[in-house]
Amino acid sequence: MSLIVQKFGGSSVADAERIRRVAGIIAETYQAGNELIVILSAQGDTTDELIAKAAELNPRASKRELDMLMSTGEQASVALMAICLKGMGVPAVSLTGWQIGLKTNSEYGSARIESLSGDRIKKELGQGRVILVAGFQGVNSSNDITTLGRGGSDTSAVAVAAAMGADKCQIFTDVDGVYTADPRKVPGARKLDEITYTEMLELASLGAQVLHNRSVELAKKYHVQMEVLSSFKPNTPGTLVKEVTKNMEQFEIAGIAKDTNTTLVEVIGLKDEPGKAFQLFRLLSNAKINVDIILQSSGCGVRKDIVFTIPRADQEKTLVSLEEHKDALGYERIAVDQDVAKVSIVGAGMASTPGVAARMFEALADAKININMISTSEINISVLVAADQADRAMNVIHEKFFPQ
Amino acid sequence: MSLIVQKFGGSSVADAERIRRVAGIIAETYQAGNELIVILSAQGDTTDELIAKAAELNPRASKRELDMLMSTGEQASVALMAICLKGMGVPAVSLTGWQIGLKTNSEYGSARIESLSGDRIKKELGQGRVILVAGFQGVNSSNDITTLGRGGSDTSAVAVAAAMGADKCQIFTDVDGVYTADPRKVPGARKLDEITYTEMLELASLGAQVLHNRSVELAKKYHVQMEVLSSFKPNTPGTLVKEVTKNMEQFEIAGIAKDTNTTLVEVIGLKDEPGKAFQLFRLLSNAKINVDIILQSSGCGVRKDIVFTIPRADQEKTLVSLEEHKDALGYERIAVDQDVAKVSIVGAGMASTPGVAARMFEALADAKININMISTSEINISVLVAADQADRAMNVIHEKFFPQ
Repeated sequence: MSLIVQKFGGSSVADAERIRRVAGIIAETYQAGNELIVILSAQGDTTDELIAKAAELNPRASKRELDMLMSTGEQASVALMAICLKGMGVPAVSLTGWQIGLKTNSEYGSARIESLSGDRIKKELGQGRVILVAGFQGVNSSNDITTLGRGGSDTSAVAVAAAMGADKCQIFTDVDGVYTADPRKVPGARKLDEITYTEMLELASLGAQVLHNRSVELAKKYHVQMEVLSSFKPNTPGTLVKEVTKNMEQFEIAGIAKDTNTTLVEVIGLKDEPGKAFQLFRLLSNAKINVDIILQSSGCGVRKDIVFTIPRADQEKTLVSLEEHKDALGYERIAVDQDVAKVSIVGAGMASTPGVAARMFEALADAKININMISTSEINISVLVAADQADRAMNVIHEKFFPQ
Repeated sequence: MSLIVQKFGGSSVADAERIRRVAGIIAETYQAGNELIVILSAQGDTTDELIAKAAELNPRASKRELDMLMSTGEQASVALMAICLKGMGVPAVSLTGWQIGLKTNSEYGSARIESLSGDRIKKELGQGRVILVAGFQGVNSSNDITTLGRGGSDTSAVAVAAAMGADKCQIFTDVDGVYTADPRKVPGARKLDEITYTEMLELASLGAQVLHNRSVELAKKYHVQMEVLSSFKPNTPGTLVKEVTKNMEQFEIAGIAKDTNTTLVEVIGLKDEPGKAFQLFRLLSNAKINVDIILQSSGCGVRKDIVFTIPRADQEKTLVSLEEHKDALGYERIAVDQDVAKVSIVGAGMASTPGVAARMFEALADAKININMISTSEINISVLVAADQADRAMNVIHEKFFPQ
């Protein structure tokens, strides 16, 4: 008998038909003799609809009240699923975040999990019940409802799996695993049987949308083995996300990702004085802007340029900050380019395998794709290319590392 | 400074526009310097929609899970109202049933309130906030969410008013008070300034829909003064419901009610033996059927008839019970008549005022309305008439007791 945690997202429980299908997966897992805890998101667009209702009343709604409002979505999902399962003869009980004792800090809208009391879950498992837990939500020390923010239900699932010592944590999505690249963009993309936490984190932060970083970080910290699999093909093995993979040596890299939500900012004609770069990036850091790749032109005179990329969402904030401090920084002008994309390769074994970067650049050179910027880390290499060449870049790199 | 409890029903918060209007009433009360606790129902048809969703998945849904599901409706209402009020500059906080410590027994779907810890409410009032409490819901000793059943939000309001020692408990509805008769049926109906708990209970149980009995019973028990008033005319005084009214002597009766949800059952040709009536009504009592008016024909032979009324909803159950025990009871046949209505007058001073019944019967006789059955109690007199004469009966009785 295994203790299994399963998580289903909002689209998997969007209507009665889909709830029934998911109930079928749950029932099968339960009837195979497993103990089972299921984490659910709110149905379909419920969360967006609730936010829209709030915005109609007050465009700057209190985050505490938004959490109170939004948490109803997941609560309704778990109650409906329990109702469906019981109709199928499967004993089930739905529980909210506060009922399972999922304690968080008070950062409404993006609360961090502090602890989880397993008492209620243990008691219900002891009764032979399937536990349905409302994802995305917890309760703070004042007994106020909090939500965990983006990727919250995945994070709930991993937290529950960690606290209860689950044997595995299955994240059901609309894809059947983690691929070497986005299959919609790279026809030859292959499903990975396994991937390390670190690789998964890099892929996620580089634009792969399968799992939210936060849940993977938590899984890594508490050694929770995750599995990404499709709710449409529940019996097809997905991708295991774990500490060390068996096949680490099989391919040099785990995958390729593309991130188009990036903006290139050029600060042109900065005075070439010591500390200018520090001054600039401290300013952006204070404004909570995540600068990604940085390129500094060599100071061959009294002026230099600094070029960097930022998330598209921070563009407005960045330009305002730079404009406000134009005199202090002493630059000539700012240029912005949105027609860029970051293409990255990720692999835990990369640092110990010589020539990985060279092969990536060779693939791009052969395809006559120009590289604007390069950034490397222990387990990834990213290049900035023109947005309209990004998909082709992914494909040629993929062919190089995963030959057909 | 008074402590006021206000309750608004689902239609008062059905959409953004109505929420804003109610928020205006709340803001005005708060800005007049009062401490304020507001109880809200779920928006519009939310509860029915949730029940329909559940029924689609399982027509015999677990009551525990239905309560988990339905309670989200009130939770969303209070969060939205808090968001609206804060946008208007009124400090507000929304709280669920479990957050205010409203403890109930475990009768899911119709839970009884056991206690209410005022700690959280006191703390929030101390911060100068308007408290928005999700009506209709509580939590049992296992920390499971319960709902109070019909009239639940009114009952929540009275319970909160009682526990917090509120100065008054205002129930906002779509009518502006309690009338001497249904104004849609009796054009001359007058709004009462005051009515006693007992009269209100009788009117409610006899078909007046303004307040649910359970909330009035609770108000009577804890001496909570209720006021029924319109959310469309919040500054027009409504009707006070209290222990003793100032104007008790002004009119002989407080009001007239009609109940059309009644069925007349005739058990014809019973053997005229001692104990037959007892046998019959014990049978119905065991089947939990509430028998209302009873008429027994005089036993002028070996056979007699027993005629009684029951709530329309119990008709099927009654007929099944009688059929099952036909041999034991020994009757000839059963006749059923749905074309009847009960018209009642209610007044606390009735028992000490001679001739009230006579005046009622006189009014009906003058109008040539036939009386099928009569029932009297300490504070009411009811007559059973043909359904199509009930409205006319109300009007002629009303003219007799409340002359224009």
